[in-house]
Amino acid sequence: MNLLEETIAKIEPQDEAIRALAHTRLESLTMPYWALGRLLDLAEELAGITRSLHPAVARKTIFTMAGDHGVVAEGVSKYPQEVTPQMVANIAAGGAGINALAHQSGASVVVVDMGVAADLSELAASGKIVSRRVGPGTKNMAEGPAMSREEAITAIENGIGLAIQAKDSVDVFGTGEMGIGNTTPSSAIVAAFSGRPVADVTGHGTGIEEEQFTHKVRVIEKSLRLNQPDPHDGIDVLSKIGGFEIGGIAGLILGAASLKKPVVIDGFISTAGALIANALCPTARQYMIAAHRSVEQGHRAALELLGKQPLIDLDLRLGEGTGAALAMNFVEAAIRVLTEVATFEEAMVSKAQ
Amino acid sequence: MNLLEETIAKIEPQDEAIRALAHTRLESLTMPYWALGRLLDLAEELAGITRSLHPAVARKTIFTMAGDHGVVAEGVSKYPQEVTPQMVANIAAGGAGINALAHQSGASVVVVDMGVAADLSELAASGKIVSRRVGPGTKNMAEGPAMSREEAITAIENGIGLAIQAKDSVDVFGTGEMGIGNTTPSSAIVAAFSGRPVADVTGHGTGIEEEQFTHKVRVIEKSLRLNQPDPHDGIDVLSKIGGFEIGGIAGLILGAASLKKPVVIDGFISTAGALIANALCPTARQYMIAAHRSVEQGHRAALELLGKQPLIDLDLRLGEGTGAALAMNFVEAAIRVLTEVATFEEAMVSKAQ
Repeated sequence: MNLLEETIAKIEPQDEAIRALAHTRLESLTMPYWALGRLLDLAEELAGITRSLHPAVARKTIFTMAGDHGVVAEGVSKYPQEVTPQMVANIAAGGAGINALAHQSGASVVVVDMGVAADLSELAASGKIVSRRVGPGTKNMAEGPAMSREEAITAIENGIGLAIQAKDSVDVFGTGEMGIGNTTPSSAIVAAFSGRPVADVTGHGTGIEEEQFTHKVRVIEKSLRLNQPDPHDGIDVLSKIGGFEIGGIAGLILGAASLKKPVVIDGFISTAGALIANALCPTARQYMIAAHRSVEQGHRAALELLGKQPLIDLDLRLGEGTGAALAMNFVEAAIRVLTEVATFEEAMVSKAQ
Repeated sequence: MNLLEETIAKIEPQDEAIRALAHTRLESLTMPYWALGRLLDLAEELAGITRSLHPAVARKTIFTMAGDHGVVAEGVSKYPQEVTPQMVANIAAGGAGINALAHQSGASVVVVDMGVAADLSELAASGKIVSRRVGPGTKNMAEGPAMSREEAITAIENGIGLAIQAKDSVDVFGTGEMGIGNTTPSSAIVAAFSGRPVADVTGHGTGIEEEQFTHKVRVIEKSLRLNQPDPHDGIDVLSKIGGFEIGGIAGLILGAASLKKPVVIDGFISTAGALIANALCPTARQYMIAAHRSVEQGHRAALELLGKQPLIDLDLRLGEGTGAALAMNFVEAAIRVLTEVATFEEAMVSKAQ
C-alpha cells in the first residue's frame, strides 16, 4: 500500500456522538434557538471533525502551493508565467495579499514549490519556501496529458506529507495556491466532474477580456476532448487536466482528514483540488470547510458538487489562500461560541415562554 | 445649540482626495485588478472616513445598548422582560455571545443601561456596566408614544456622549443592543421610513410562531396608525415608536461620524438606530459599515434605505453586537491589505500583458 492508499484508509467519518453533544450544548447557550446560525453549524462540524467539545483551533497554517502550467502556451492568461516565481518570492518576503490576511487572522503561511517553471532553489535553501517539486511546470494539456499518472500520485503524496509533518504543530489547515494559468485546469476539472458545458464553469481568471475568454473555453474543450479524463478516477483527472499545485492541495486535504483535523478550502483552484480529493475519498468532504464564494463562475458548480456552502462572499478572486485566511476568523469564532458562552442554566437566564 | 445639533453640524462628508489616493494604491497592489473585491472597497471607505492612508483600527469597541419596551405588554416576544437585565448581567460577566465574538476579534465590549426596566445600579456602581438611563423602559407604543420628544433627544445625546468620551481610546466603534421586544419597534421604524407594509418588514424575532407573528404585525400596525410618526423627523419617529437603546445607537453613530471614525452597524435593531441617525443627518451614512444581513426580513429593507451592502451573511439573528464583532475582522483585514501589501513596483512583479 502506498502513502496515498494508507492515508485514504485512515479517513473516517465525523464522530456523530460528539456532534450530538456539541449540538445539545449549542442549543442551551444563552441566546434564542440557533441564533448565531451558520456559526453554530460550523462549531458542530468542528466538534465532529476533531472529536472534541473544546476543539483546538489556535494554530492555523495556510499552505500556499505554487505550480506552473504548460497550457499557458495557449495564451489563456493575462499575466506572463514569470509572475508565478515573482509572486512566490513576494509571498516569501511577506508582501502579498495572503501575508496581510494571514497576519490579521493569526495564521502562518507556508509557501510550497510544487512545480514552478523556474529555479527556486535559493529560496528553498534559505528556508523561506518549502520545496516539494514534481517537475518544472506541467505539460500543455491541450496537446496531451498535463502530467504522468506517477507524477499525479507524487503531487498528491507530497501534499499528504506536508499535512503529516505538521500534525503536531497545526490545528487547522488552510489551502491556497499561486500559479499563472491555473484557473484553466481548474475549470477543466470542474467540467470533467460536473459534466457541465465548459463555458458555464469558466471565468475571467486574472481579468481576461471576452475574446481571450472565448479562446480559453476552446482550449479547455480541446483538452477535455483530447485527454478524455475519467471522472470516476481522481488520479486520471489530475494527471490529464490538472496541475502540480492542485494535486498538492488534494493531498493536503486528504492528509488533514486522515489526521482528523479541519481544512479550510480557499477559492476556485483550491476547490478543484478538493474535487480531486473527493473523487479519491468522498469521506474527506466531512473535513472540508468552504471559505468563500469566488467571483469565478465555475466555483459555484464546484461547491455544489461538494455540497458545501461557503462562509464568505466578498467578491474575492485572488487565491493564494486569502479567503481561507479570512475564514479562519470564523473557525475561531465558532469555537469561542462553543466553549466560552454560558448556558441558560449557568447564567441563570430565563428561557422562552 | 444643543449637543445633538452641535454634533450634526460637525459631520462632514468623507475626504474624496484621500479616497482617491487609497484607490490608486489599492489598484497597484500585487494582485489582479481589485482581486480582493469588497475588502478593497472597505479599505477605500476607511481611508475616506479617517482621512488617512494608514487608518488606525486597532482599538475596537462594541457598545451594547440595553433597553426595555412597554410594547412587550402586548405579548410580542417569546421571552419575558426579565431576560433583559439577566442578559445585561450575563454580558457584564462575560458569558454571552457578544463576549465570545468580541474576544475573537479583539474588540472591547461596553454594556450600557439606556433604560432597562430593572434596578441595575449595583452593576453600574461596580463599573461592569455604564449607566445612561433615560427611564425604566419605554411606554407601550400601541397605546401612545413610546417616549417624550425630550426623552428621545436625551437618548440620542447619551449615545453621542459615549462616543465623544471614547474619542481618544477607540478607533472603530461598533453598535449592539439587548432588549426583549426590540424587534417590534425596529420593524415599526423600518415601516415608517420605507413606507412598506408592516408584514413585509417584520420577522420572527427570538423565534415566535405564526399566530404570535400575525399578532405582532397587528400591534405594529396599530402603533403606526395611532402615533403617525413623521418619517421626515427622526426625533418624532424615535419618540413615538422607538426605544431608548435605539436612540443610544443613533447617537453613537452620530458621535462617531462627528469624530470622523468608522462605526460598524450590527443587525436589525442597530440598523433601525442607523435609520434614525440617517434621518437626522444623511451624511452620517458615510461613516456606517453594515456588518451583516440578519435573518430578520425587515433588515434587507433597512439596509436598502441606507444604501449599504453587509459584509457577512451567516444567518445571524442574535444582536448584542455579535455581527459587528465578527465584522471587525474584515475592517482590520481591509486595512492590513491597504498598508501591508506591496505594489507591483515595490515587489518587482511583472504586470498584466
